[in-house]
Amino acid sequence: MTAPTEGFWGDDPSRLLRVDEGFVLAEVDTDSRPGFDGDKRSSESALAEGAAILSKLQEMFFAGSTAGDTRSVLLVLQAMDTAGKGGIVRHVVGAVDPQGIAHYAFKAPTKEELEHDFLWRIRKRIPGAGKIGVFDRSHYEDVLIARVRELAAPDVIDKRYGTINDFEQELVDNGTTIVKVMLHISAEEQKARLAERLDRADKNWKYNPGDVDERLLWPAYQDAYQLVFDRTSTTAAPWHVVPADSKWYARLAVQHLLIDTLQRFGLAWPPADFDVEAEKMRLAAS
Amino acid sequence: MTAPTEGFWGDDPSRLLRVDEGFVLAEVDTDSRPGFDGDKRSSESALAEGAAILSKLQEMFFAGSTAGDTRSVLLVLQAMDTAGKGGIVRHVVGAVDPQGIAHYAFKAPTKEELEHDFLWRIRKRIPGAGKIGVFDRSHYEDVLIARVRELAAPDVIDKRYGTINDFEQELVDNGTTIVKVMLHISAEEQKARLAERLDRADKNWKYNPGDVDERLLWPAYQDAYQLVFDRTSTTAAPWHVVPADSKWYARLAVQHLLIDTLQRFGLAWPPADFDVEAEKMRLAAS
Repeated sequence: MTAPTEGFWGDDPSRLLRVDEGFVLAEVDTDSRPGFDGDKRSSESALAEGAAILSKLQEMFFAGSTAGDTRSVLLVLQAMDTAGKGGIVRHVVGAVDPQGIAHYAFKAPTKEELEHDFLWRIRKRIPGAGKIGVFDRSHYEDVLIARVRELAAPDVIDKRYGTINDFEQELVDNGTTIVKVMLHISAEEQKARLAERLDRADKNWKYNPGDVDERLLWPAYQDAYQLVFDRTSTTAAPWHVVPADSKWYARLAVQHLLIDTLQRFGLAWPPADFDVEAEKMRLAAS
Repeated sequence: MTAPTEGFWGDDPSRLLRVDEGFVLAEVDTDSRPGFDGDKRSSESALAEGAAILSKLQEMFFAGSTAGDTRSVLLVLQAMDTAGKGGIVRHVVGAVDPQGIAHYAFKAPTKEELEHDFLWRIRKRIPGAGKIGVFDRSHYEDVLIARVRELAAPDVIDKRYGTINDFEQELVDNGTTIVKVMLHISAEEQKARLAERLDRADKNWKYNPGDVDERLLWPAYQDAYQLVFDRTSTTAAPWHVVPADSKWYARLAVQHLLIDTLQRFGLAWPPADFDVEAEKMRLAAS
């Protein structure tokens, strides 16, 4: 186990948040902050410190890809509405060079997408070498809303978990490290956040009446998530459940998961693949 | 002419940097800072202040697209190697929400791309509603390196300027505001920056021996840029030449061009398209 580089973690959140055998979603305290002893105030400098570390690692990772390193990273974000996926993208992913990010937000499938296997649209968005891909929603929608809303026959949905595991194993075998994150808020916290979207004129645009429709199915969604964890938290691509009632904690935790991933890569600046001294002479003469 | 919102501009750089009739590239001082009276030190707080303004405008712009505003922005970046395109993306574009950015770096065309009209691959990357597209290189390569390296017959290249103007007019007519920027450095500044890439092990990966090959054609490239400005700086989509020997000045200037563009849109938070009071009741009951 690599120790976190960021000095502010009391214990490694990568381990604390990982979904292992016997995990029970209903037992997670959405208002907890595993591994972090500080408060909201101290979280700001911690996030800035982590951003500098992540940014440097990302540059080195990208540099390696120009010298033949074919590895990539894929951050998969899943959550109930208002849990803070957008904030993660903005404040964690947004702190690194946009040139190294491949972000994609999956919406309800189009007619063309529905005419294909559910992984068809996903495969098109797999990040290339040296990139950090970010999925805002993902193929897991096909076993979450699809299950809750019965968008496919039960036996079709049942087969998808295995298909997903095979798919992710294939990605991992091809050099993609998958970081799967569910941001976990309480139903009460969601209510407060939706209320704020209704109260503030500059937040109205983020509100959709359909959000309440989904909210009414909260227990069914929690069950569907539990099934996802039971069936798809694999050694190759484990899930992490991040308590997210504190937005600042969730951001720090996801930032750490990315830092931890890149640190395990054992990155280094790629050596020159040309004769440096000869190039210095050519440049001087130019 | 709108006055710049950012208090630190003495004069509006959008106007000062625009390529109008009679513009002569060779007369531009690459080490000048039109409109900005401060120095490198004061530029840091200025860039942060501008980032906050741009970030807020971008969010409002994106919000509008969810309510039917179909406008988009396209930032086109062209420059000689090392002029700082990457730094613009990282420090200017990188300060706004990644979810509102559509960045694409055009490389040498693939075999498939060469089998199509030169705008084929460009059209696929036009930003959608509410997005700020960023082209790191663009269709202008087809009249820059293509002219200097004679990658197509002279009459074929000659026709492209008009084709580009028609294409850009079509985009503008469809609601895309195009912000065309050439970052302009001196040959001496480029030499110093390439030397740094050779001197520092953590910069070697950014160096390519081909960079010196292109550098040896400096005068031909300057001529090709002058032709681009003469023929494609239109009322619909004017060029801006940004002196870029000072990286900090170039970043501030491009940041302002984006701020200025969004401010002219007359943005506002979109009103709710649902009954707010009724939704508050539904939420309370949920």
